[in-house]
Amino acid sequence: MNIKEFINCKSKVINKELDKHLPAEDIHPIQLNKSMRYSVLAGGKRLRPILALEAAKLIGGQEEDILPAACALELIHNYSLIHDDLPAMDDDDLRRGKPTNHKVFGEAMAILAGDALLTYAFEIMTKIDNVSAEQVLLAVKELAKASGSKGMVGGQVADILAEGHQIDSNELDYIHRHKTGALLKASVRIGAILSGANDEQLKALTTYAEEIGLGFQIVDDILDIEGDIEKIGKDVGSDLDRDKATFPAIYGLEESKKMASKTCKRAKEALNIFGEKAEVLLKLADYIIERDY
Amino acid sequence: MNIKEFINCKSKVINKELDKHLPAEDIHPIQLNKSMRYSVLAGGKRLRPILALEAAKLIGGQEEDILPAACALELIHNYSLIHDDLPAMDDDDLRRGKPTNHKVFGEAMAILAGDALLTYAFEIMTKIDNVSAEQVLLAVKELAKASGSKGMVGGQVADILAEGHQIDSNELDYIHRHKTGALLKASVRIGAILSGANDEQLKALTTYAEEIGLGFQIVDDILDIEGDIEKIGKDVGSDLDRDKATFPAIYGLEESKKMASKTCKRAKEALNIFGEKAEVLLKLADYIIERDY
Repeated sequence: MNIKEFINCKSKVINKELDKHLPAEDIHPIQLNKSMRYSVLAGGKRLRPILALEAAKLIGGQEEDILPAACALELIHNYSLIHDDLPAMDDDDLRRGKPTNHKVFGEAMAILAGDALLTYAFEIMTKIDNVSAEQVLLAVKELAKASGSKGMVGGQVADILAEGHQIDSNELDYIHRHKTGALLKASVRIGAILSGANDEQLKALTTYAEEIGLGFQIVDDILDIEGDIEKIGKDVGSDLDRDKATFPAIYGLEESKKMASKTCKRAKEALNIFGEKAEVLLKLADYIIERDY
Repeated sequence: MNIKEFINCKSKVINKELDKHLPAEDIHPIQLNKSMRYSVLAGGKRLRPILALEAAKLIGGQEEDILPAACALELIHNYSLIHDDLPAMDDDDLRRGKPTNHKVFGEAMAILAGDALLTYAFEIMTKIDNVSAEQVLLAVKELAKASGSKGMVGGQVADILAEGHQIDSNELDYIHRHKTGALLKASVRIGAILSGANDEQLKALTTYAEEIGLGFQIVDDILDIEGDIEKIGKDVGSDLDRDKATFPAIYGLEESKKMASKTCKRAKEALNIFGEKAEVLLKLADYIIERDY
């Protein structure tokens, strides 16, 4: 199995499901629905949904039961990108090779589209079938904690406050574990929780997710220096311009690359208990570290 | 029972619960937690939580079981105020007699504090005890639908798009039923759902909530013209300045006052099936129409 082809194929399934869930463009208020669909359906690797689906499959869950939760994770990710790109935040013009949401729909609509996507994520969670209400509620809690002030939003705040300041490795760790890591971890855990994982399975998958979450962000930081704008679809070098806290800034480029490899190794080791059944998740760990976009 | 004293007394219970739930100011990231607490604990009538608690009591629910949901409703209301006040939206400087969130903490933090409060509302919903997981999930669905693109956010978008345009009474109705009405309706319904209301009870309470929601907004529009800035705690006349769609602008001031009275009458009639047990909700309907702030 070629992992890039696999991701491509899976992302089509997820895109179809997202398209089905999002409000149609011809219903009121049209501008809002257009704005929501513009960002969500602009592409992207759909890593979070894929991680949720694969963690679920590893535990014995059914893809169709997990798909609403997979979509909810992608909606949260997309709302955070729309708000991060706003002029008051990172002020970015380009995302996935297209103008950012506020460049097309204006700031007010971009703020509201983000709000609506975040809210809709929780509505979709209530559409999960064939799973007990107790398990769905646990997954809702996991999603909310990972996305809010103790998770993603907290990391984004720390990231903004760190701009232009010297920060230590502890604070960098906090930022990355929260800003990117929290939702990636929740993706894996939600897939596992909804499929009835036991404590040992959940613990192993949590370690896996924490390591790939950290690795993902280290590689993101490296790509901001070495990446190809054509492939990444957003501005390169913007972290440096903004004096952002990054792994290469604190540890240097070579050491950062070594650290990324180590996270990948630790992520894969954590899945030993599953044996060969974990093949896709193992390949996803390699892919996350070796990707060039 | 004096209804103003009752609201005052209940709001203290709710404020204490909100204070307990919100992250402390001395934990990381401090700026975010300060910003969240600043807006939520700035006061306000706490109408939505009170409606949820009273609807629950009418059906036989226990206050302590409903309190987390009551707080969630208030958090959603507060996030929407923070985002509505932003420069890209209504650009307001004053809220509840204090500088708006972005005036104190800056735009980026105000956007993120709103995001965190919205997310936290759903986390709190998962803390509801002594109610079946199925009922809690129904309440989560109700909250998400009322707050998102098919509810409050949809109404806010339509309101912004209507600025400076001639709109008809249908569109005004859409804006008000969604922007303010949806969350007020959800407040009453969530209290009822979590207390196990039957179809007849839920239908009656839904009609009550729809009518007071509409009445609430008509009175808000009237207060923007006739209100006392000292009492309201926000700028007066700002609807006119912004060429906003309002009831007085379409129907005139006197006709708007008559319409508000009629909504109150219909709201109270809907509760006939409950007899005297509905006393507090009946007085709340009067209060909403007769308030001067």
